[in-house]
Amino acid sequence: MVYVTRIEKFNAAHKLWVKDWSEEKNWEIFGKCANPNWHGHNYTLYVTVKGKPDPVTGFLLDARVLSKIINEEVLEHLDHKNLNLDVPFIPPTMLPSTENLVMIIWDLLKDKIPSGQLHAIKLYETDKIYVEYFGE
Amino acid sequence: MVYVTRIEKFNAAHKLWVKDWSEEKNWEIFGKCANPNWHGHNYTLYVTVKGKPDPVTGFLLDARVLSKIINEEVLEHLDHKNLNLDVPFIPPTMLPSTENLVMIIWDLLKDKIPSGQLHAIKLYETDKIYVEYFGE
Amino acid sequence: MVYVTRIEKFNAAHKLWVKDWSEEKNWEIFGKCANPNWHGHNYTLYVTVKGKPDPVTGFLLDARVLSKIINEEVLEHLDHKNLNLDVPFIPPTMLPSTENLVMIIWDLLKDKIPSGQLHAIKLYETDKIYVEYFGE
Amino acid sequence: MVYVTRIEKFNAAHKLWVKDWSEEKNWEIFGKCANPNWHGHNYTLYVTVKGKPDPVTGFLLDARVLSKIINEEVLEHLDHKNLNLDVPFIPPTMLPSTENLVMIIWDLLKDKIPSGQLHAIKLYETDKIYVEYFGE
Amino acid sequence: MVYVTRIEKFNAAHKLWVKDWSEEKNWEIFGKCANPNWHGHNYTLYVTVKGKPDPVTGFLLDARVLSKIINEEVLEHLDHKNLNLDVPFIPPTMLPSTENLVMIIWDLLKDKIPSGQLHAIKLYETDKIYVEYFGE
Amino acid sequence: MVYVTRIEKFNAAHKLWVKDWSEEKNWEIFGKCANPNWHGHNYTLYVTVKGKPDPVTGFLLDARVLSKIINEEVLEHLDHKNLNLDVPFIPPTMLPSTENLVMIIWDLLKDKIPSGQLHAIKLYETDKIYVEYFGE
Repeated sequence: MVYVTRIEKFNAAHKLWVKDWSEEKNWEIFGKCANPNWHGHNYTLYVTVKGKPDPVTGFLLDARVLSKIINEEVLEHLDHKNLNLDVPFIPPTMLPSTENLVMIIWDLLKDKIPSGQLHAIKLYETDKIYVEYFGE
Repeated sequence: MVYVTRIEKFNAAHKLWVKDWSEEKNWEIFGKCANPNWHGHNYTLYVTVKGKPDPVTGFLLDARVLSKIINEEVLEHLDHKNLNLDVPFIPPTMLPSTENLVMIIWDLLKDKIPSGQLHAIKLYETDKIYVEYFGE
Repeated sequence: MVYVTRIEKFNAAHKLWVKDWSEEKNWEIFGKCANPNWHGHNYTLYVTVKGKPDPVTGFLLDARVLSKIINEEVLEHLDHKNLNLDVPFIPPTMLPSTENLVMIIWDLLKDKIPSGQLHAIKLYETDKIYVEYFGE
Repeated sequence: MVYVTRIEKFNAAHKLWVKDWSEEKNWEIFGKCANPNWHGHNYTLYVTVKGKPDPVTGFLLDARVLSKIINEEVLEHLDHKNLNLDVPFIPPTMLPSTENLVMIIWDLLKDKIPSGQLHAIKLYETDKIYVEYFGE
Repeated sequence: MVYVTRIEKFNAAHKLWVKDWSEEKNWEIFGKCANPNWHGHNYTLYVTVKGKPDPVTGFLLDARVLSKIINEEVLEHLDHKNLNLDVPFIPPTMLPSTENLVMIIWDLLKDKIPSGQLHAIKLYETDKIYVEYFGE
Repeated sequence: MVYVTRIEKFNAAHKLWVKDWSEEKNWEIFGKCANPNWHGHNYTLYVTVKGKPDPVTGFLLDARVLSKIINEEVLEHLDHKNLNLDVPFIPPTMLPSTENLVMIIWDLLKDKIPSGQLHAIKLYETDKIYVEYFGE
């Protein structure tokens, strides 16, 4: 069993704001992330799949295939987007925190990985913070 | 003469969109950067000052002082902001391209650097593109 | 269950020297790290907490809160310090190896992490060596 | 129990080509990696050992010793080599994919690590792809 | 005048070997780089253009355009290639050292950069060595 | 004319403290860097030489030769040392600031670079601050 990780990047805008809360409470809890006019990040995404390599090719999953799946299933929907407004599968009541994003990306990918099994999603929001999710 | 560079980071949202152009032309020229709902970046800023170090302290300019100036004069205005909407000194007709940002940041800093002389501004928008400006 | 990691940095001096050993044995075992006049490092610390994100905020633990805890409980004691001389909870008989530091940092943090559970401490001493500890 | 990781680098040439396949099939499956005249990479290798630190030295395994073992047992055979032609323990029928390399490196190291136990091999082929192996 | 730099990567095999020299002299001068069966690198290429940004778009040169030029004029010829065998404009008597590569890449690009002027080529061979060329 | 840069690393302890000043003034000017028991850094050193490559080898200066010179002339004296106490050519009245270190390293190297001319010394003290010196 080997674990193959592909790294891809995307850029997006978001804000953290709970509609049911007062403006004061939003600024208190989320600080500068509550800016109503948005801010944004260069996100770095790590997708890890696990399995046994093919004895002939030596590949678990061709990196070009894995990259294509991540681009079509994830980056197509998130890159250069507003994560609060532009993404149909992020409901308006779900804040686009990095914690929620890793679970959403897991769901986008879990049935799309051929000849391998999705093992982990890891997402850097800045170079000081990242979140990981292993599917449960 | 030595050159001292301090590195700071900020996160912001922006879009590239010329109001006088058609929607088609904006998408053609700016691609995904024209998304009307914004996207964003983790910017990395390099500020370089030059001069002769003080013979007693060995400092051209204390890194803590330089960091404080950059934070007060630049990051206070740009971090977690929308570069098209939130920054008074970026006029609505000036697009917040990285090329324009380095010239704006130069103007914010050029009279604020004590015991040293501003030499260069360098700004990474993503890890594949950066712009430099030397004041002329 | 998601895993949130916050990265912080600190600078410190140390040396590796066993008082009960001869000078020869210290130099033989620790090489240049035995320099009696100390050397130092830029340490990079990764703190990982695990748990379920809050359904309203989408946060497991606000990165600003986690950063504040790490600064108050760890960096306040280790940053710009001599790890052999200045840190009361590193006893004189315990060498400040990276292996010992991760266990010490775990103990400093394990009861201080609210709304989450400490999962891992990872510490880079240089960019070629790091140590991880998972609490047991 | 702590986990100590040492990072080393090596440069090598390789190609991905199955002798029993047609030229067309090789190009279709392996793309540019099938170039008959080879291409190459700067590989970055992470070797992780686990165990209890020595109570006197604070070391699980001296980083200099671990580095020496990796250099003698692995880099001596792979650095500045052609992975298809120059490495006796990579049989001609085994393609030097990163998946196969981590398992080969595991076998080279598993009996050579003193006062510790081999825990993981991680190998970056480019800065967008890496593979991990934990021995089973 | 601003300076815009685009970063691209490619992987290639090469060896350093002077045909007119004895085998002994080649190994003495080039060390492991003389391996007759080749070795290889992940190269990182920085291309810098200078000029005045367009007052409407704020661009000196659209990063997508610059990336397309670098891919078509440089990476098409060098990526996943053998630099000694596969590149028509590297003559057999010219060794593919990083010093020679930056001058070759300059010549490939100098007439292809629209609305800007080529300023610098910088090429990392490993993360410990890079070469720069400014056209003269 | 090409510019070749070699990157090397070293670890050292130091403190910033002016003997003629009061304890209060030292803490006010140097902050945590005044800790009497020292602190330390992982320094990253860039040495740039310029010249014309040899037409036969394609080398300005073999990277192995350049690395050997830097190790013998600089790292031998600074690596794993106390920059205030252990380095004969840093006089007691000169603080080991990064500004002073680049000028000292320039003087150590300027007459030792064969078949090339020293062009620049660049030294990172942390990943947020570096200093450059061009010899005048």
